[in-house]
Amino acid sequence: MIIVMKQGAKKENIELVIDLVAKNKLKPVPLYGTERTVIAVIGDERILNKDTVEAMDDVDKVMEVLKPYKLAAREYHPENTIIIVGEDGNAADRVKIGGKEIVVMAGPCAVENKEQIISIAKEVKKAGAKILRGGAFKPRSAPYDFQGLGEQGLKYLAAAREETGLEIVTEVVDPRDVALVEKYADILQVGTRNMQNYSLLKELGKAKKPVLLKRGMWATYKEWLLAAEYIISSGNPNVILCERGIRTFETHTRNTLDLAAVPALKELTHLPIVVDPSHGTGRRSLVSAMCKAAIAAGCDGLIIESHTHPEKSVSDAEQTVSTEVLKQMMKEFKKVAEAVGRKI
Amino acid sequence: MIIVMKQGAKKENIELVIDLVAKNKLKPVPLYGTERTVIAVIGDERILNKDTVEAMDDVDKVMEVLKPYKLAAREYHPENTIIIVGEDGNAADRVKIGGKEIVVMAGPCAVENKEQIISIAKEVKKAGAKILRGGAFKPRSAPYDFQGLGEQGLKYLAAAREETGLEIVTEVVDPRDVALVEKYADILQVGTRNMQNYSLLKELGKAKKPVLLKRGMWATYKEWLLAAEYIISSGNPNVILCERGIRTFETHTRNTLDLAAVPALKELTHLPIVVDPSHGTGRRSLVSAMCKAAIAAGCDGLIIESHTHPEKSVSDAEQTVSTEVLKQMMKEFKKVAEAVGRKI
Amino acid sequence: MIIVMKQGAKKENIELVIDLVAKNKLKPVPLYGTERTVIAVIGDERILNKDTVEAMDDVDKVMEVLKPYKLAAREYHPENTIIIVGEDGNAADRVKIGGKEIVVMAGPCAVENKEQIISIAKEVKKAGAKILRGGAFKPRSAPYDFQGLGEQGLKYLAAAREETGLEIVTEVVDPRDVALVEKYADILQVGTRNMQNYSLLKELGKAKKPVLLKRGMWATYKEWLLAAEYIISSGNPNVILCERGIRTFETHTRNTLDLAAVPALKELTHLPIVVDPSHGTGRRSLVSAMCKAAIAAGCDGLIIESHTHPEKSVSDAEQTVSTEVLKQMMKEFKKVAEAVGRKI
Amino acid sequence: MIIVMKQGAKKENIELVIDLVAKNKLKPVPLYGTERTVIAVIGDERILNKDTVEAMDDVDKVMEVLKPYKLAAREYHPENTIIIVGEDGNAADRVKIGGKEIVVMAGPCAVENKEQIISIAKEVKKAGAKILRGGAFKPRSAPYDFQGLGEQGLKYLAAAREETGLEIVTEVVDPRDVALVEKYADILQVGTRNMQNYSLLKELGKAKKPVLLKRGMWATYKEWLLAAEYIISSGNPNVILCERGIRTFETHTRNTLDLAAVPALKELTHLPIVVDPSHGTGRRSLVSAMCKAAIAAGCDGLIIESHTHPEKSVSDAEQTVSTEVLKQMMKEFKKVAEAVGRKI
Repeated sequence: MIIVMKQGAKKENIELVIDLVAKNKLKPVPLYGTERTVIAVIGDERILNKDTVEAMDDVDKVMEVLKPYKLAAREYHPENTIIIVGEDGNAADRVKIGGKEIVVMAGPCAVENKEQIISIAKEVKKAGAKILRGGAFKPRSAPYDFQGLGEQGLKYLAAAREETGLEIVTEVVDPRDVALVEKYADILQVGTRNMQNYSLLKELGKAKKPVLLKRGMWATYKEWLLAAEYIISSGNPNVILCERGIRTFETHTRNTLDLAAVPALKELTHLPIVVDPSHGTGRRSLVSAMCKAAIAAGCDGLIIESHTHPEKSVSDAEQTVSTEVLKQMMKEFKKVAEAVGRKI
Repeated sequence: MIIVMKQGAKKENIELVIDLVAKNKLKPVPLYGTERTVIAVIGDERILNKDTVEAMDDVDKVMEVLKPYKLAAREYHPENTIIIVGEDGNAADRVKIGGKEIVVMAGPCAVENKEQIISIAKEVKKAGAKILRGGAFKPRSAPYDFQGLGEQGLKYLAAAREETGLEIVTEVVDPRDVALVEKYADILQVGTRNMQNYSLLKELGKAKKPVLLKRGMWATYKEWLLAAEYIISSGNPNVILCERGIRTFETHTRNTLDLAAVPALKELTHLPIVVDPSHGTGRRSLVSAMCKAAIAAGCDGLIIESHTHPEKSVSDAEQTVSTEVLKQMMKEFKKVAEAVGRKI
Repeated sequence: MIIVMKQGAKKENIELVIDLVAKNKLKPVPLYGTERTVIAVIGDERILNKDTVEAMDDVDKVMEVLKPYKLAAREYHPENTIIIVGEDGNAADRVKIGGKEIVVMAGPCAVENKEQIISIAKEVKKAGAKILRGGAFKPRSAPYDFQGLGEQGLKYLAAAREETGLEIVTEVVDPRDVALVEKYADILQVGTRNMQNYSLLKELGKAKKPVLLKRGMWATYKEWLLAAEYIISSGNPNVILCERGIRTFETHTRNTLDLAAVPALKELTHLPIVVDPSHGTGRRSLVSAMCKAAIAAGCDGLIIESHTHPEKSVSDAEQTVSTEVLKQMMKEFKKVAEAVGRKI
Repeated sequence: MIIVMKQGAKKENIELVIDLVAKNKLKPVPLYGTERTVIAVIGDERILNKDTVEAMDDVDKVMEVLKPYKLAAREYHPENTIIIVGEDGNAADRVKIGGKEIVVMAGPCAVENKEQIISIAKEVKKAGAKILRGGAFKPRSAPYDFQGLGEQGLKYLAAAREETGLEIVTEVVDPRDVALVEKYADILQVGTRNMQNYSLLKELGKAKKPVLLKRGMWATYKEWLLAAEYIISSGNPNVILCERGIRTFETHTRNTLDLAAVPALKELTHLPIVVDPSHGTGRRSLVSAMCKAAIAAGCDGLIIESHTHPEKSVSDAEQTVSTEVLKQMMKEFKKVAEAVGRKI
């Protein structure tokens, strides 16, 4: 930690800061510059409260040197985390996220009925997807919009897995539902609005299944990794990050998909990262290009809204690609994956 | 709803849109322009799904004419909502939010112990505050930071109320805790990170106490009012909105306090609106000026982080004003309130 | 400057950094922490290039301690700058910006013809404005929109000054026009789009008249003050800052008016600051409330779009208040100004 | 244009709007809905001023149906524009932007001296770049930073072209310098800060050389295309768009590179689009991944800061890749380009 005092700081206030550092069993190193005094702190600064120091008289600003997250940081865990999905069969045959293969997750925004989800599951499987997505609990901006089928939707998802062998990823929005969703799903998804719903994150830390943690549309990389740290420090190391676009001033697209997050997070963390170009753009016609871009940027997976009849989708229809189109797109994705030494 | 077709849209696709509108018992009015065809929809468009229409072939964009929220809208409820806080005494003597008086809520970021909260309560009461703020459940970015005292903190808050007569506002972060917090608090606060935690909002809709709904740091006015609509439509009409700053590119301040939200929301909704300049700026030295600005802009209340010894605060110390300073500030607030025909 | 090395940085790379600092005649102080090495730099760090240091091997990040602007900083110029406008009469009678009085500038978006500008000037003078605003050179998003009357517009503004005694503020958009605009205007305005048009800023540094520097809609306080530094360091110390809203995700208002800029910049700089709630909100119905808020926040002036017939304005009509309404508003502004110890 | 009246709008105000539309020789179609009246306008709405209509009494909002730009719009110019760069040799052999080939532009942030630029030019040519970038006029945030060598820098660039055969792209920041820069350069660059410097854009409209128009860091796609429209409508149809990142709340990267702009603009416009991952990320280690992503997204070119000795670069050193690294990267770029049916 580096503590910058104000210009003309009083001697006694400088000493109060030095005392505080020392009292915390850290080593203060005061540096008396031409214009300002700076106090460097040697030791694990994380035990000092930045707020408290900034609140002291004559302190101008405090700069952190160490990262506030540890378990999610690549610094302390250099090798990539590879997450094994599903329970059946031996580990070698199971879907792995974070390895050489780029895993495609596809399916409708919401589970609407049993026939719908099973017929879509069959088609996305033919396209080459390994995981079926579909919402049973839907967080919607307006209370009057369709909120999902709840447990019935989870049962339909399980039926679709039974039928196709696809693994299931689905969202959980309430800490009280974690056990229920875990009963049916293979991956538990945290939606963008809940990235800092700490009650939910802590509950997911107790789950045995991997968690797909979507980036809050307002969240910095640091806050996103701290959200992952909540889950890991609560006991569940299997966190998959998902970039899904951030909120900016541009309104042509629903969000601004921040693909630089892919290589940037590969440096900061050992966790796998997947990309959601459907929410990231909100426009069906841009999904294919952004999937290819995400693969080229180094992502470990894609999550794509796909429906046999997009125009009949009860939600997010404008960003949903048809399963027919998905099959064509997948052929192109394979070529890009090979070009960057990966496979689909 | 206005449906704009693409340039050169096929006749059969235009007819499919017209059919869909008619099937929903709405009246389609096609307008054949020089460059494009536009289909106006007469009737309550809210029964048509915007997504579905946008997903149809040759549809370029869909524009909504009516607001998606009803219960929160001033259009359907022209007079101001005035919220009565607390249970003791007769209604006339109780604290009211949304009337002529601007209500000040003050107190520490977190409840730390009984002595701390009672001594602060006494001082903020002397300053003229009517409501005591203080967190017992603290949502913190990092899992290693102090997370609050939980129920013990609620009990200390109740003790402070007993001692001073101040009403209590405190945050609830988990739908499972709503009943517990309601037992002790007079106003239940939803923090910025939980503005779209719909499980929590629905649970608060069943509560009997008023809800202070902070704006999500990423949320538009429309989304914020839709979050209020969740609470109201679940049964609780007593929602107080709280502007606390949005996330922008400016880093000198912790957030960008959007004071235009005050007069803008006064037009859009009948609900009262209070302002939080402590989180809105993140800097103690800016709090007083922004409180005065908020009063001049027409707010119904202020929520201010205040502590007898800010530098000893366990969190948000850099934005906390001392109770001594608060007393001075309140004198100035009174003058500004009078200048705009209000009182404190 | 504080240079943070990467975890596990090689000894020779640490030494290369130390050598570079020493070669620049600054004193390097290496601090060997438990996890990382940090090198503090003693002396005027501004002679070291931050980019160059960050580009060195094993350097993680570089943190600046000193502000990059000097002439605009309050640190080196503690007393407020008061700017005297106009040339006629003795200094004591002239309009002053930055003193006790809050100066109101009002007028139409664009000068349209002689009669229009003179009749508006008379009305805004009656309302109590001291300075007339009006564009002769208009930067417009689309090339097909009205671009202003050019020099003819400047002549009409001068005629309005002749008629009313109001001082004139008008925009200059091209470095080639600075001398021309200076011939007619009392204050030269830099629009938001040109805040980092350095050719224009340098040319304005040679002008003898004060400059009203609007904040770029994307600019941080630091960048804004650096733009002021361009003008001052080129020879013109009379810079008035103007907060006019920044671009955010909120679309209900045209921009997000950042009123915290007022008290924040009062700390950072000695220059006066005025507020433009017309562009800051883009909605006529919000202008009055935000003017009052700006006064309460401590601004030194207001710039308000006003027209005798707003609906006939050729541009920005939706944010223009009628001169009749302006007269009413001014009465309320006076009360708020008095409440905070200022006058209008 | 669609004009939405307020709920309960007065009959006479509705008629005033209808009259205004009719007076402009457009056809008004009033639609009396259950809650509101909407007036649709048939004809070329661009002759009606949106502002003026929004300023009328009882008008709630106005929605545009047609795009405000015409010359830049794909709607009116369906085939891709291919821009031929340079003057020597026959057209078939010259560099083309917008065709099958993805054109790489590389070189230092600033021209520092003759030896530097020539040696870098030789290396980037070996790597496979077709165009040399390098700034002679540098817009810098602080007035004390290196501002470029001016005409001398242009001469060095011309010498490097002479030596290597590479074409030259360099920035022009002042309308007075357009003729000078055109004398030496093959492509004239408009920097992000000047995207809405309309004096400069109009002057570039008179130039005979192509213009590379960087996106303003605050600009929407619409504003960016309107800036292109300024250049085209002033006489120069050869505009190359350049995505270089927008300003958001994320601070880990210098900007947020908005790659969805590539496929989105391919739909909206016929102009070629190149990507600048150096400024888009501000971090050397992210450049390669984002170049590959840009290629996969469908860009027509890349502009990359590259230097023989990045750590000696006088500006933007932290985002500059070494020419050695560039050579390696180019091999990977070729593979990705082939995977999406393009070539480098």
